Amino acid sequence: MKIYGRNAVEEALRSGATVERILVKKGANDAHASRIIREAADRGVRVIYREGAALDREVPRGANHQGFVAEVTEFEYSDTDDILALAEERGEKPFLILLDGVEDPHNLGAVMRVAECAGVHGIIIPKHRSVTVNDTVVKVSSGAAQYVRVAKVTNINDAIKYLRERGVWVYALDMDGEDLYSADISGATAFVVGGEGKGVSRLTRSLCDAVLSIPMFGKVNSLNASVATAVAVYEKVRRERAAK
Amino acid sequence: MKIYGRNAVEEALRSGATVERILVKKGANDAHASRIIREAADRGVRVIYREGAALDREVPRGANHQGFVAEVTEFEYSDTDDILALAEERGEKPFLILLDGVEDPHNLGAVMRVAECAGVHGIIIPKHRSVTVNDTVVKVSSGAAQYVRVAKVTNINDAIKYLRERGVWVYALDMDGEDLYSADISGATAFVVGGEGKGVSRLTRSLCDAVLSIPMFGKVNSLNASVATAVAVYEKVRRERAAK
Repeated sequence: MKIYGRNAVEEALRSGATVERILVKKGANDAHASRIIREAADRGVRVIYREGAALDREVPRGANHQGFVAEVTEFEYSDTDDILALAEERGEKPFLILLDGVEDPHNLGAVMRVAECAGVHGIIIPKHRSVTVNDTVVKVSSGAAQYVRVAKVTNINDAIKYLRERGVWVYALDMDGEDLYSADISGATAFVVGGEGKGVSRLTRSLCDAVLSIPMFGKVNSLNASVATAVAVYEKVRRERAAK
Repeated sequence: MKIYGRNAVEEALRSGATVERILVKKGANDAHASRIIREAADRGVRVIYREGAALDREVPRGANHQGFVAEVTEFEYSDTDDILALAEERGEKPFLILLDGVEDPHNLGAVMRVAECAGVHGIIIPKHRSVTVNDTVVKVSSGAAQYVRVAKVTNINDAIKYLRERGVWVYALDMDGEDLYSADISGATAFVVGGEGKGVSRLTRSLCDAVLSIPMFGKVNSLNASVATAVAVYEKVRRERAAK
């Protein structure tokens, strides 16, 4: 897998991921570039200098690699039990995000970043009709992809049942639900977030403990998936901290 | 300006923006497509059917127009006083977002969406070293660009001084600040959000009433600009509603 962009490459090096080698644009010698190159050298990662055009060919057309491309081994998916095990290891109640048909890599990358920052134990995505962790996702995640557990499941509805059987409260984030700010979201929690413009599917909604809505005051009244996730996740973070 | 994507085109029609004409991919006749075409007809907007390849040429390479492209007149910027006037008109205390060097159109589009949903009165962006409201921004905003006031200013620091003179409390959202959740953010409020990976500049931070930080628990610990904006904006929304 290719990771590109300065922050993403730097995080890949720091995280201990298996970085095969990094390609650096010839002439990159500002302070940030030098720091990344030193980091690579310290870790025994080969640094290869190339013309900018050669780097352009390594990334999606139009993508901004900022003069740095890293070749790393493929993203390693976890399974649902790995995510629950991490919660137990940390002595915390499970806290998960389930994505129901999110297809935009920008959204998955941003959700991974939210999960990493907010201390969420993992993300569950369906195998089909969903974006997977590709190069763009890793780039957008700004390094979070190195730390966040992502499980790919055959059926998101089965995953919801599985979590509920294990004491996790599962809430769909969607329109026409209970107000997020007055709902009880204590305990082990999973938020289910729908895909762009489609929301959470009807069957999936019906399998959740409740549907929660973020209050809206405008005419458009739909937030993108990563933003809605962040608002709900941080409301839970706020309450957990207030309760301490 | 070109607007593309079904939701964005539909919102452009509904908002009363000046839509010159819409291009529709031949054969688009599902329920959603028919509704948009009817909406255009009702408003006297010319509908032109074209092959998919012709539509592809109207949008940035690789962009997903979903069979719909609208040609609308250019985005009309507001100024800071227009934004303050809207607050007054609504009988509300001013609530603004200032972007300090955000260059990614996905971020500006998502921030516009947050602003529209949360009832923010407007967004201030600098004229230079900043993304402006282009086609991608409008697409990502999912229609919010039709409703949200955006002011372009020569100098973001002057805008901060101007707002503070008018009784608006200005808070930078950045690292190493006061905890967002324990800070007082009542009254007229503006949040200043920095660009990707750079945060709010030192001078700008020093001109704000306070620096506020979103608590983070991971290793990467940086949220993207639109996500950070949403978390802060919705924390203010939550408190305003709780105070009622």
